[in-house]
Amino acid sequence: MRDLEQLLQGVDNMLPEGSIEPLLKEGRQLVIKAGFDPTAADLHLGHTVLIEKLRQFQEMGHQVVFIVGDYTAMIGDPSGRNVTRPPLSKEEIIQNAKTYQEQVFKILDPKKTKVVYNSEWLEGLSALDLIKLAGSQTVARMLERDDFSKRYKNSQPISLHEFLYPLLQGYDSYHLNADIELGGTDQTFNLLMGREIQKHFGQKPQSILTMPLLEGLDGVKKMSKSYGNYIGINSPAKEIFGQVMSISDTLMWRYFDLVSGISINQINGYKAQVKEGGNPRDIKIELAKAIVGRFYSQEEVDNVHQAFINQFSKQQLPSDIPQYQISIDEQSLPLAVLLRHANMVKSSSEGNRLIQQNAVKVDGKPIDALPDLPCVVQVGKRRFIEFIA
Amino acid sequence: MRDLEQLLQGVDNMLPEGSIEPLLKEGRQLVIKAGFDPTAADLHLGHTVLIEKLRQFQEMGHQVVFIVGDYTAMIGDPSGRNVTRPPLSKEEIIQNAKTYQEQVFKILDPKKTKVVYNSEWLEGLSALDLIKLAGSQTVARMLERDDFSKRYKNSQPISLHEFLYPLLQGYDSYHLNADIELGGTDQTFNLLMGREIQKHFGQKPQSILTMPLLEGLDGVKKMSKSYGNYIGINSPAKEIFGQVMSISDTLMWRYFDLVSGISINQINGYKAQVKEGGNPRDIKIELAKAIVGRFYSQEEVDNVHQAFINQFSKQQLPSDIPQYQISIDEQSLPLAVLLRHANMVKSSSEGNRLIQQNAVKVDGKPIDALPDLPCVVQVGKRRFIEFIA
Repeated sequence: MRDLEQLLQGVDNMLPEGSIEPLLKEGRQLVIKAGFDPTAADLHLGHTVLIEKLRQFQEMGHQVVFIVGDYTAMIGDPSGRNVTRPPLSKEEIIQNAKTYQEQVFKILDPKKTKVVYNSEWLEGLSALDLIKLAGSQTVARMLERDDFSKRYKNSQPISLHEFLYPLLQGYDSYHLNADIELGGTDQTFNLLMGREIQKHFGQKPQSILTMPLLEGLDGVKKMSKSYGNYIGINSPAKEIFGQVMSISDTLMWRYFDLVSGISINQINGYKAQVKEGGNPRDIKIELAKAIVGRFYSQEEVDNVHQAFINQFSKQQLPSDIPQYQISIDEQSLPLAVLLRHANMVKSSSEGNRLIQQNAVKVDGKPIDALPDLPCVVQVGKRRFIEFIA
Repeated sequence: MRDLEQLLQGVDNMLPEGSIEPLLKEGRQLVIKAGFDPTAADLHLGHTVLIEKLRQFQEMGHQVVFIVGDYTAMIGDPSGRNVTRPPLSKEEIIQNAKTYQEQVFKILDPKKTKVVYNSEWLEGLSALDLIKLAGSQTVARMLERDDFSKRYKNSQPISLHEFLYPLLQGYDSYHLNADIELGGTDQTFNLLMGREIQKHFGQKPQSILTMPLLEGLDGVKKMSKSYGNYIGINSPAKEIFGQVMSISDTLMWRYFDLVSGISINQINGYKAQVKEGGNPRDIKIELAKAIVGRFYSQEEVDNVHQAFINQFSKQQLPSDIPQYQISIDEQSLPLAVLLRHANMVKSSSEGNRLIQQNAVKVDGKPIDALPDLPCVVQVGKRRFIEFIA
């Protein structure tokens, strides 16, 4: 089944095992649910792993339903533990959701995507309804959730209302009569709760696909703003292109699988090419074009591609350019010292000498101070370093 | 402060320590809260410990508010663990509450007692309100509750909604602006939750008085229907009188303190009497009269008192009559065998001989089989045994 193979590409886990195939065989339009927390609307490539999977379902004719979790966002964190997360106002939520939609609709077809706010049905829920829902679950089951069990063991407070959120997420599945819910691996518990609540109401429980967390540019940590290893969806095309070109040849296949939007057949073709001796850099260019193409027009893709070839390929740019992250403390340091920190020169005096010899360049032009980050700096003829913030 | 001394008589715990005195000194009418679970309306003397304390507050001019917990009673036990506790219908709850009121109004003044159903305000509570309440508490705090912590450690299930009930009980305190809440010792956690919720809403937190569990007729276990060691409020006057007379001289003072309705000064007078050589049995008669007098007219009290004197005092009934509890297995055994089991005869043949000699009697009349339980059986001239179920 070609559809199944495509849908399971890159998937971390299917629950219950083997449950998707019979659903697809039913031949009807399936309801595919995904939730969105409207507290953080500025997306990076890591967020698109899930959106890409939704797109695949959508292209096969299924109904993608995006739930904006505005109901719980209005609560904030009443324990006062996390002062940086105040309750959001209705206006903020709507604005965040709008920004979010603008971003995801670069990948999804807006006409085929249903966006709903869960306050629509949760606002009608009474305390009694919630108590009944709570009665269908046990405390021990809640404490099985990884992060809860760790916090409980370490005597870190868990606010009681945190036990209620999964019930509401589950209630959403029941309300939508979801066939499949998609989420990150870290959401597995909550996704399973959807099954429990559906069963509680006598509804057929949904299947679950968990998507892995995308590794960041470093190939080690998960992509995250706080690690500075991310590709922003709203970043300039040129920046995205360069960032993709900076990842390792191994990580490249992960990005192909998870965020390229390229079919599994095509990817297999690329793999064969490399196996037969093709240059991984050429394949990586295809990846960079595909990823930029998710967020920019074909014309812009061609432009940045051409610029890249002009700037780097002609200089026989190595396929792996090391990165050096400049800390806040370093931002005011002279370029020569930074080159020393990045291990591009043996001493800052060597750095200064090279700068005076016009042997330190960006885009082929000599520099004596660092331009805006990120930027790829050429030192001498062969050495390149990408400075990132 | 005479009022304070009376109010603290028999009290198990005051929380916070010393918090009642300043309240009384305010000189205003205080709101005294007590809750009632409408799942069990058939009261025994143990239940009146709390009602007696309420009566004292009431006599001092304070406003007693009885909350019928109809809201949560409508939920039942949705975990399905306890199949014997189905949700109650509105009609059943109202009927139970009515029966309950009839019983408590034998002690409390109906005109001065406010009876309210907590569905009045809890039905208006939304899921969101409840989530916010839950956010004011932590899971660890809930698991500190004795029974929860035991069950969690023993891997016995705790339904998640059980964590929500204390919040609602606390919300009742907030809604009523309660000054003092009374409850059993086993309710301490829930009573303290009232303080938490009141504080959450910026209200002055209530003081708490916990009342001890009354020991049953055996003087060891708490009074309970399941232990068969109880005095039913609706039992015949004669039965109550006899039951009180069967308790030990030590237990007698406990009953005086907790359920007699007799002032602390009067009780101190009785204690002095016994200390000076008075017969404890005579004092116990005062207790029996007082307790029967809570539920029956003075005329009936006099009648059963007289009957008691006629039947037992003239026979020099000992002040302590041992009890023997008849198990289900024993119910069909011949009287002679039961007398042997109760250690009243050395063998069942001795028992049979005494029965044939008309030396085994109830109320002075020979018997050859056991009448309805409980009953005091005289064996020979001096030996008495009370058979109980």
